[in-house]
Amino acid sequence: MPKIDVCLTPELLPLFKLDDKIVVVIDILRATSCMVTGFAHGISEIKPVATLEESATYGLMGYITAAERNGLKMEGFDLDNSPFSYMDPVLYGKKICVTTTNGTKAILQSAHARKVIIGSFLNLKTVADYLFIRGLDVVLLCAGWKGQVNAEDTLFAGALVSHLKESFAIGNDSALMARDLFELQKGRKLDFLRESSHFQRLNRLNIHKDIEFCLQSSIYECLPRLEKNVILAH
Amino acid sequence: MPKIDVCLTPELLPLFKLDDKIVVVIDILRATSCMVTGFAHGISEIKPVATLEESATYGLMGYITAAERNGLKMEGFDLDNSPFSYMDPVLYGKKICVTTTNGTKAILQSAHARKVIIGSFLNLKTVADYLFIRGLDVVLLCAGWKGQVNAEDTLFAGALVSHLKESFAIGNDSALMARDLFELQKGRKLDFLRESSHFQRLNRLNIHKDIEFCLQSSIYECLPRLEKNVILAH
Repeated sequence: MPKIDVCLTPELLPLFKLDDKIVVVIDILRATSCMVTGFAHGISEIKPVATLEESATYGLMGYITAAERNGLKMEGFDLDNSPFSYMDPVLYGKKICVTTTNGTKAILQSAHARKVIIGSFLNLKTVADYLFIRGLDVVLLCAGWKGQVNAEDTLFAGALVSHLKESFAIGNDSALMARDLFELQKGRKLDFLRESSHFQRLNRLNIHKDIEFCLQSSIYECLPRLEKNVILAH
Repeated sequence: MPKIDVCLTPELLPLFKLDDKIVVVIDILRATSCMVTGFAHGISEIKPVATLEESATYGLMGYITAAERNGLKMEGFDLDNSPFSYMDPVLYGKKICVTTTNGTKAILQSAHARKVIIGSFLNLKTVADYLFIRGLDVVLLCAGWKGQVNAEDTLFAGALVSHLKESFAIGNDSALMARDLFELQKGRKLDFLRESSHFQRLNRLNIHKDIEFCLQSSIYECLPRLEKNVILAH
């Protein structure tokens, strides 16, 4: 039986061997939720980069640029980090270069894995079905917040562990705890997250609507994945 | 209102500022449970050290030596890492030098905090009362297992957060999740831990009795604390 591990923050990633595993990168509020939304609305490619400078360079090469730091859109870039921005019909068929506080870093750090998948509540069922069919060992990598563990990414990791519990063995205690937390809170995700640090941070930015959107389960069927340092979904 | 943070593994400790905080070090299976048991049975002092070599040196200076690696007692040292060994009447009034896989390292790493306290289920109420009376910010440091997060240390951290919830603000999402996990599992700690990695590891070593012992709440009233790199309880 393949096993499923949860890595609660990228700071702990060096403890995991990734070469022969599928990594699911999770940044619910909001990087991976935005990416899934964008692909569901017809964008063609996402280039994840670590720095604002790299993003600006891709902008000169014709990419739409999305740059967020500390929850805020950076001056001089095209898109903020809201899933609603990724629904804009002008983005159809376009390439987007994205840099965010936590999510894009987590993607780049796991690039040496056998396969890297972009996960969010929005494409939960599609990701779970893919992992079930592949049947390989899995590491669910929570992007967290500046190294700290966060509640919403752990909750989604727990949702995946819970969905796959018949066909995967629990790999580590983080997976066990995430699963129990999800099973406890699944009926009241928003209320649970109201107490969390990120919710409070983002709520101050007046993006309550984004948070509610990002907590919807399985509304999209796309499966974004990293192919040679570019994210594609087709 | 003071705040309470949980650090799920020593790997994440660099993210926390400790100078003005009380740190509670937690290694339920079994280092901090053993220390509390030892003080409750009259030992006078514990010297935590990182290496087997240091422990051997303290042995030459008249200390009783306790050395564990990977759950096993090391050849040539006096004590193993079982709480029952710390009840031996011959230890009354004695000094013990201890080195373990995770617990003693976590203690040494937090030595620069304002105060370092040794916590376990065995002295839960005493630790909670002390933190309540002091009213300072707290970091609950889970020793984990070789850098990985573990279920039993997180469960105890959650017990402390739960006991202090009227008088401390939740500092980070790990504290929030640990609290919810404890409140979910408190009536069935042993059953919950049956699925955990450490339980399975230790159970192979045939120390089921130790595990049951370490999960008892508030049977001792001692409060071991670090004073100039030595642990005392009086």
